[in-house]
Amino acid sequence: MHKRFLMTPGPTQIPPEVLLASAQPIIHHRTAEYSELFARVNEGLKYIFQTQNDVLCFSSSGTGAMESAVVNLCSAGDKVLICSSGKFGERWQQLAEAFGLESTVLAYDYGGKVNPDDVAAALKDDPGYKAVFVTHSETSTGVVNDIEAIGAIVAGHDAVLVSDSVSGMGSAEIRTDAWGVDVVVAGSQKALMLPPGMAFASVSDKAWALVEKSTLPRYYFDWAKARKGLKQPKPTTAYTPAVSLTVALDAALGMIREEGLKELFRRHRTMGRAAREAVKALGLELFSPDDERCSSVTAVKVPEGIEDAELRSLMLDRYGVQLAGGQGSMKGNIFRIGHCGYYNFSDIIVTITALELALNQLGYEVEIGRGVSRAEAVFAEEGS
Amino acid sequence: MHKRFLMTPGPTQIPPEVLLASAQPIIHHRTAEYSELFARVNEGLKYIFQTQNDVLCFSSSGTGAMESAVVNLCSAGDKVLICSSGKFGERWQQLAEAFGLESTVLAYDYGGKVNPDDVAAALKDDPGYKAVFVTHSETSTGVVNDIEAIGAIVAGHDAVLVSDSVSGMGSAEIRTDAWGVDVVVAGSQKALMLPPGMAFASVSDKAWALVEKSTLPRYYFDWAKARKGLKQPKPTTAYTPAVSLTVALDAALGMIREEGLKELFRRHRTMGRAAREAVKALGLELFSPDDERCSSVTAVKVPEGIEDAELRSLMLDRYGVQLAGGQGSMKGNIFRIGHCGYYNFSDIIVTITALELALNQLGYEVEIGRGVSRAEAVFAEEGS
Repeated sequence: MHKRFLMTPGPTQIPPEVLLASAQPIIHHRTAEYSELFARVNEGLKYIFQTQNDVLCFSSSGTGAMESAVVNLCSAGDKVLICSSGKFGERWQQLAEAFGLESTVLAYDYGGKVNPDDVAAALKDDPGYKAVFVTHSETSTGVVNDIEAIGAIVAGHDAVLVSDSVSGMGSAEIRTDAWGVDVVVAGSQKALMLPPGMAFASVSDKAWALVEKSTLPRYYFDWAKARKGLKQPKPTTAYTPAVSLTVALDAALGMIREEGLKELFRRHRTMGRAAREAVKALGLELFSPDDERCSSVTAVKVPEGIEDAELRSLMLDRYGVQLAGGQGSMKGNIFRIGHCGYYNFSDIIVTITALELALNQLGYEVEIGRGVSRAEAVFAEEGS
Repeated sequence: MHKRFLMTPGPTQIPPEVLLASAQPIIHHRTAEYSELFARVNEGLKYIFQTQNDVLCFSSSGTGAMESAVVNLCSAGDKVLICSSGKFGERWQQLAEAFGLESTVLAYDYGGKVNPDDVAAALKDDPGYKAVFVTHSETSTGVVNDIEAIGAIVAGHDAVLVSDSVSGMGSAEIRTDAWGVDVVVAGSQKALMLPPGMAFASVSDKAWALVEKSTLPRYYFDWAKARKGLKQPKPTTAYTPAVSLTVALDAALGMIREEGLKELFRRHRTMGRAAREAVKALGLELFSPDDERCSSVTAVKVPEGIEDAELRSLMLDRYGVQLAGGQGSMKGNIFRIGHCGYYNFSDIIVTITALELALNQLGYEVEIGRGVSRAEAVFAEEGS
């Protein structure tokens, strides 16, 4: 009896209802039936994005939607400001380089947070930036940046603010309109509780004005074409959409609506806090900041004397609990517990139990039950 | 009791086994488990592509893989030759324009075939073409071009041959290596019997040499990065793959292997012939050529006095049979019967029956059973 607990920050667990929705007989995408579905999905996306802007859909991974932001907003040689403190901040840098942008990088160590004052200083220093690219939830480290503060700063400048919220959307709150985030990018395989294969970008009026001036070549990820499809009386996509994932998204968005944003974010904040408190109670050291904003991923330093790969293999093979390792320069140094999406107290309790049992088996001194008790206490305190 | 028969050329019917495979609990893509699956899928893709070349996988629609061919092979200002006789030939033109290529178009009317002599003459006229873009199966008209003849011509030149086989792969034969097709693009939602959301590109050594010189900007669709992932001892993708579709693809490729290519193509040729013969027996006029190569889609002229939309609505609402209308300039003038993928005699018989019943109901003179009898006779003749 090997039950599996996928505790990685993407792909994430998928509700059985959503899996079964994705397995319905396929429907054609140029029909009233699809348009009705797609219109409902678009409303649901606006709800979770907390925006009145159009949310464009692409059949791609999150990286595809990130690329779409670069090629629709910029022209070769444009100055852009990139805030980077992990693997996905580096992805903005790589994209900027691939498309010939002149980028200034506010670089922080892995595990660091973007300091909004640095953004303010950079924009004051050079008013010529077309866009500021930032990572909302840095999947590689667990850090969640203060997008509200950064939004307030960028709003006063000509530059548009672009946030990679692939692992944040639906688990770490981002108030797209209230915080003035011009472009928010998300993916299907995190807190939206779907398989990978769909990605999203919401676009503000300020950003659309920039799109009109942008000259980078684009076709598949062309935003104007995607918006044109949305505006028709019968909304559709520019190219063949990932139909089965769209049907699944409709089911997932229905579950999210039913829970409501307030409870959704409370649940995620509580899971984050429970994971952090449990890890600390075991004497392990957090790598992600001990910050209530860190509600998507909890990153933990691999303790002295323990091999990361050995620990994670044991947890997977013996207890069915799959954690993620470190990415980039963090490989071997940290492990990551993903809890964005279809997760609740039960997943945290099982994960901490497996962690305790595995550490104990590997000879690491751990008081059996201590982390789990601490996690449970957090759930009790938070009224779960 | 409303049974549905999706007879459109993409999305196409999906075997229940494949739907259920796609609904399995999700697995993580950076694991030995995924690599083993992905390695098997790659072998299966080579089998159906009939190639020893690597077949690169993308999470996108077929258009994304078409774009990948343009941006990986070309540089701005490159001369390219485009053969166009329908909506998807026009898509190559639009892609070439979006990415600043200097294109010469061999343009044929909708429903026309590419004349290989024209390709030979164009290449003789100007030896400076970097690439020749052609549509294998033109989904918008049912035409299947003679890729073997075009391949033999292009092989003698510096240019590479790129074929859009999105609706052809697995239903109209293309022998990638034997016919010298440098790049073959395919999509998941046609004869590969999957939902939309994955696309593929096979790349020859001649094409890789061009990739090294190409300077168009690219990131998400970067072929070199995709190949790097394949070459590792544990093959993977550059970015998060469409995991559930990859699992489903494994199931679909298993079914294709079991049937074997010989029977696969015989089945499709027979369905194409049966559809054409039945349509003619009803006194309707074919729009796609009466050609045994046309084994993916059968396009039919809407008869005088009949409204295309009314006919197709009646067939769908009353008989559950969904046909496709015309695309581009063919809208309202033709309807299309898709039979690429998970289709056999039963689907053709049901479709022709519904067509007869609907025409009869709309007051169009038709001898009830005549088309169906003719289709059945074809299946008998072909040993189905």
